[in-house]
Amino acid sequence: MKLYTYFRSSAAYRVRIALNLKGLAYDAVPVHLVRDGGQHLSDAYLAVNPSGLVPALEDDGITLTQSMAIIEYLDEVHPMVPLLPRDAIGRARVRELAQIIGCDIHPINNLRVLKYLVKQLGHDEQAKTDWYRHWIIEGFRSLEAHLARNPGTGTFCHGDTPTIADCYLVPQVFNAKRFDIAVEAYPTIARINDLCVELPAFKAAHPAHQADAE
Amino acid sequence: MKLYTYFRSSAAYRVRIALNLKGLAYDAVPVHLVRDGGQHLSDAYLAVNPSGLVPALEDDGITLTQSMAIIEYLDEVHPMVPLLPRDAIGRARVRELAQIIGCDIHPINNLRVLKYLVKQLGHDEQAKTDWYRHWIIEGFRSLEAHLARNPGTGTFCHGDTPTIADCYLVPQVFNAKRFDIAVEAYPTIARINDLCVELPAFKAAHPAHQADAE
Repeated sequence: MKLYTYFRSSAAYRVRIALNLKGLAYDAVPVHLVRDGGQHLSDAYLAVNPSGLVPALEDDGITLTQSMAIIEYLDEVHPMVPLLPRDAIGRARVRELAQIIGCDIHPINNLRVLKYLVKQLGHDEQAKTDWYRHWIIEGFRSLEAHLARNPGTGTFCHGDTPTIADCYLVPQVFNAKRFDIAVEAYPTIARINDLCVELPAFKAAHPAHQADAE
Repeated sequence: MKLYTYFRSSAAYRVRIALNLKGLAYDAVPVHLVRDGGQHLSDAYLAVNPSGLVPALEDDGITLTQSMAIIEYLDEVHPMVPLLPRDAIGRARVRELAQIIGCDIHPINNLRVLKYLVKQLGHDEQAKTDWYRHWIIEGFRSLEAHLARNPGTGTFCHGDTPTIADCYLVPQVFNAKRFDIAVEAYPTIARINDLCVELPAFKAAHPAHQADAE
């Protein structure tokens, strides 16, 4: 398996965690989002993923994009160390928690959106930072409420083993900390993150531990 | 089943299509996103969904949010008229296509994001419209490329029966047309949309046919 990745991309970080949790070996192909005017926009990479976004996974001659689709695929094809619970309601809840991050926070703070704020709309660094923080704070308020109110929350986001939701939570907390969000204001998020980041699968997926880290 | 919905919400529109395709009856509970300062931000609705977003589905005493999680749940619990193919690669592809819309287009054009552009950043209607159109054009370019290059594309986004990807495509095309995007520039998207909108399940889910339509 070949994973097109960028050390700091949180969508790629999620997939790296999932691969590591399942103990699946892969070749990391770095795609630099800044260098060369953005290697993700090169003809070579657009032939891999016409969306021009990382990650992309090549497996068995097929190419998959979109982190959630990739992780669900890995979970179906390699069911050992399942990342979704066995019951339909549990699975729905894990997907819901992941999507609060994957749909309500992360896309709005994506690099290309931040670039639009600066280039097309003429905003400065401060306005960009305020924007970034705003959507994390909104999203964490919501995610914390979903986690805190539901008895399904265990030592991890759902139950006592890592699921897709945890693969999403840790990279988002990493981004939050980069932008000085006080994560301890969201006690359940902070508690689960603190537990996850000590696990080898999460550690090995950390941006600082990638071959393309700067 | 009870669906908290707003006639024009494209996330709610997706779930209505899925419910109709499966022939599942439901009670629509309208949540007006503008009236009363936004009924989705009321204490009553935040008790249903702390994220303050539609849709939410109540079924069997549980409440689910996030359109993708809801539709996958419906597909698991009511497997008649499946909305995902049987093979893992096909399922990954359908999820990927849906997420190009659900992650790369729709969240950036969500009402709360448009509000931030106007209120916090002081932009006018024109800048807001340019923003909205930009992310649809970017996303449709990408979606069209994914559809056009893959032999899995059939009369529908994947194969010859509707899947979750079609539940996502039709509401996004509806939004595109509201903002005068020339959808015919994306021939595969336009062809599939034209086919879908004639089907009863899609017709009944259309914003104009909802009890809360204006």
